[in-house]
Amino acid sequence: MSFETKATVPSFGGRLLKLSHSSAVIGSPMALNLYLPPQASDANKVPWIFYLAGLTCTGDNGAEKGFFQAAAAQNGVAIVYPDTSPREPRYDGDDEGYDFGRAAGYYINATKAPYSATYKMESYIVEELYTALPKEFPLDPAKVGVMGHSMGGHGALTLYMKHPKKFKSVSAFAPIANPSNCHWGQKAFSGYLGDNADDWKAHDATELVKTFKGKLDVLIDVGTGDAFYKQGQLLPEHLETAAKKAGHEGVKIRFQKDYDHSYYFIATFAADHIEHHVRFLVSQDNLIDF
Amino acid sequence: MSFETKATVPSFGGRLLKLSHSSAVIGSPMALNLYLPPQASDANKVPWIFYLAGLTCTGDNGAEKGFFQAAAAQNGVAIVYPDTSPREPRYDGDDEGYDFGRAAGYYINATKAPYSATYKMESYIVEELYTALPKEFPLDPAKVGVMGHSMGGHGALTLYMKHPKKFKSVSAFAPIANPSNCHWGQKAFSGYLGDNADDWKAHDATELVKTFKGKLDVLIDVGTGDAFYKQGQLLPEHLETAAKKAGHEGVKIRFQKDYDHSYYFIATFAADHIEHHVRFLVSQDNLIDF
Repeated sequence: MSFETKATVPSFGGRLLKLSHSSAVIGSPMALNLYLPPQASDANKVPWIFYLAGLTCTGDNGAEKGFFQAAAAQNGVAIVYPDTSPREPRYDGDDEGYDFGRAAGYYINATKAPYSATYKMESYIVEELYTALPKEFPLDPAKVGVMGHSMGGHGALTLYMKHPKKFKSVSAFAPIANPSNCHWGQKAFSGYLGDNADDWKAHDATELVKTFKGKLDVLIDVGTGDAFYKQGQLLPEHLETAAKKAGHEGVKIRFQKDYDHSYYFIATFAADHIEHHVRFLVSQDNLIDF
Repeated sequence: MSFETKATVPSFGGRLLKLSHSSAVIGSPMALNLYLPPQASDANKVPWIFYLAGLTCTGDNGAEKGFFQAAAAQNGVAIVYPDTSPREPRYDGDDEGYDFGRAAGYYINATKAPYSATYKMESYIVEELYTALPKEFPLDPAKVGVMGHSMGGHGALTLYMKHPKKFKSVSAFAPIANPSNCHWGQKAFSGYLGDNADDWKAHDATELVKTFKGKLDVLIDVGTGDAFYKQGQLLPEHLETAAKKAGHEGVKIRFQKDYDHSYYFIATFAADHIEHHVRFLVSQDNLIDF
């Protein structure tokens, strides 16, 4: 078995498994949470959704505060909550800021030393976890969605467009939608990918959407009271404009009056997001055809 | 104004107010959270429920992880999340254990020095907050319930029975139901009330129920996988037996298979508890008549 189950926590009729494993991609131990709804069994492999968390988080934040389990149990879907960066080995300065290094892996594969040795969160998600989890748990390998918050919203949007055959549904809460043009993204991308901004485009949702050929039906919620939205870290309008120009009409951004960037915001709209994914994951008629 | 609103956080269509005030009863500043559902307005004062948290907690745990706001918004009730002890002044040894002193106030008025000077959490709840909150916020002063978890479950059960005219509904998650007979309760009560166990009875739900004259219709959930239940810290069967002997048939204890003591457990059954309270708080027909 690749995964060790450290704890099994009942939640909304299903089970939250606190897992750890030795990641071949990262080269060190990683922790994550997997919520299995009550419907999941060896005889009934369920659709599943990655929830990618934001800066400073681990796999626990979404599980404890996101309230995805309530709607996941109702709809019979599983949720995977990965960590947000490798945790070892450590690099000089990897905890100097909350927005780079530890807990700030950005769901990309770093190309710049020293981070390039282990910060491979993109491959960790779309190759290692994507492949290994359905081998050990009752997850349908053909029905996978991805959602995320802030840095994880960037992760959800970009992994969906970079690996269109892997994910059937996508949504985001307050995503960093154009990282090449905000302070957070510029700091992270220059640190992980180098200073040539051309290299960043392959990891920027607003750039990716310009040439994306698949169908894009994405639910995005952004709070108008979100301090990071107001600072220009999220830039959802850039994504919306680029998507429209490229003919993608399915980028639905809901601006939620006064909501902030916190898990109170996420919890409020968690059920809407699960239901969005269910449209594509559960009902065969609605499966996206690439 | 008695209360200062430090932050207003949208949640499930309503507002979570992060409040602070200078408590006259405690004699120092106290923080709390108040969730107002979308229905609350000056013209529509809503029923409200105290949520009393357990050991180690503040007013934030229930607000962030309890999932009460979802059902509170649906049903138009407010939730008050007080802190679990005074925070100043400090006493020698008040943070030596997680189960006594700071964050372990037990919702009683201490009679033993030095705690007797400020550890007056019973009066803080049933006098100060009970009276002051409806003066400043759209809360119906005649429709108040009380619920809690663990130490806060003890608080909910005992405050309901000690102040029967104040609360119209009561429920508890994994309550310390017979503190005089468990290690947690004995440590706390001897520290706050002295070593004479006779003095503890007025603060022990299992003792109080023996002579309680009001109507008792209480929903209690306990997880069978709860490590503290298995250690004998909760003793819900003692309460159940004493209640039956005293003719109180309305003590409903639901043993939830495999559930633990965590907020995952609370969140799972939060909506059931809100709906239990709503039966007594919202529908006039069901108001308890003392």
